[in-house]
Amino acid sequence: MNAPSAISARIRGAAEAVVRVSEIFGPTIQGEGALIGLPTVFVRTGGCDYRCSWCDSLHAVDSRYRADWKPMTSGAILDEVRRLSGDRPLTVTISGGNPAIQPLGDLIRQGHERGYRFALETQGSVSQDWFAELDMLVLSPKPPSSGMVTDWQALANCVAEASAGPRTVLKFVVFDEADYAFARDAASRFPALAVYLQPGNPIPEGAEAEHEAVDPDALMRRMEWLIDRVTADRWFEAHVLPQLHVLIWGNRRGV
Amino acid sequence: MNAPSAISARIRGAAEAVVRVSEIFGPTIQGEGALIGLPTVFVRTGGCDYRCSWCDSLHAVDSRYRADWKPMTSGAILDEVRRLSGDRPLTVTISGGNPAIQPLGDLIRQGHERGYRFALETQGSVSQDWFAELDMLVLSPKPPSSGMVTDWQALANCVAEASAGPRTVLKFVVFDEADYAFARDAASRFPALAVYLQPGNPIPEGAEAEHEAVDPDALMRRMEWLIDRVTADRWFEAHVLPQLHVLIWGNRRGV
Repeated sequence: MNAPSAISARIRGAAEAVVRVSEIFGPTIQGEGALIGLPTVFVRTGGCDYRCSWCDSLHAVDSRYRADWKPMTSGAILDEVRRLSGDRPLTVTISGGNPAIQPLGDLIRQGHERGYRFALETQGSVSQDWFAELDMLVLSPKPPSSGMVTDWQALANCVAEASAGPRTVLKFVVFDEADYAFARDAASRFPALAVYLQPGNPIPEGAEAEHEAVDPDALMRRMEWLIDRVTADRWFEAHVLPQLHVLIWGNRRGV
Repeated sequence: MNAPSAISARIRGAAEAVVRVSEIFGPTIQGEGALIGLPTVFVRTGGCDYRCSWCDSLHAVDSRYRADWKPMTSGAILDEVRRLSGDRPLTVTISGGNPAIQPLGDLIRQGHERGYRFALETQGSVSQDWFAELDMLVLSPKPPSSGMVTDWQALANCVAEASAGPRTVLKFVVFDEADYAFARDAASRFPALAVYLQPGNPIPEGAEAEHEAVDPDALMRRMEWLIDRVTADRWFEAHVLPQLHVLIWGNRRGV
């Protein structure tokens, strides 16, 4: 907790919620999903109740990076977002880890007062009453290739918490046929939600490898496969999108 | 006009509007702009009141291809769209050439009756009363690098015709600083409209060259430049998107 925020919390007479933050960076564009191409600042929280086999953000998940996660008040996070954006409101993307395990209601309320908007990305394993205050909720249930098992009731609770508030969408990473079948099934359970599919981007083992260049041509062949799959099934409501940031910057962090 | 449609037109006691069609293909994904990633069937009309220096659809613009443009009734176009989509409704993208110089109101009405949705892309030089019946109107004024000059009153007329109906957005191709300045100016004239920017994709001279492979890395460097430009200006409402179909398939037609 930095000094000015601690003081402001005391002045207000209540302890502000403290969020574990892995990184705050931007503005850059949102590289995937419903807001693809839109300038955003990312707030990545530390800690996750999942451990996906192909996680591309282990530095925000694995407890061996815990010392890098900074406890910050909502005020301190918003100060940093405002600094990065030159105090000009934009859409803040909150991701993780699983940001739904953090106390983020204060940040959203304080940001709204200054005109900022908030999109949150989570696997949908934990719901919070402050989901209703978001501008966008991206629910990204993890397919079989992740090694995780979806709790459908927990996911339904997330949809329900958000029902009166944000635009809620589903996003699926698809590595193979089993993942695709999972996405079809999950989407059919929530027919009112828009669907975004993205081909999986295999990360080589080890943190160092996160920085390695990717093969854009291989990624485009995976796009082609997924487009063929979706159009053959006449699944005309599903968007198929790559991870633009991976195409532009590889697996580099902070862009 | 094919025979069954001619008969149906006579039965209905009125001559159906005839549209000059360059090609109908899909389903594939929309590769750019507000509907990026969404499966769609493209109806590309023949003929254009513009002649952009970097036109990527000369086969639908240049009069030397006129013999390839097939006169089709709305019913015949819809029959082909239904055949391609397996009679399952989807979003039809109407582009050109400039589709706004064609009589498309009948097609939109007949398609709506069967659950199809319609997005139309035009430079905004010609407005039509049937714009109000579209689901999405993409206005793509051409920047200085095109060699064309925008008629701002004509563009405003397009926005006005569509005001009660479709979601209307602005899309700009940006090759250089002058194009970027044009986009900034045009967007400021219509602050209520969402903005989509895409880096220009230079097409080598000659129709044969349309099929040549593109350099994805060079396209990504242009994306990076445009993202830097937008974030440096804190133009946080503008989306920056590539042409996905070019990344996936190069400049090949019919995909």
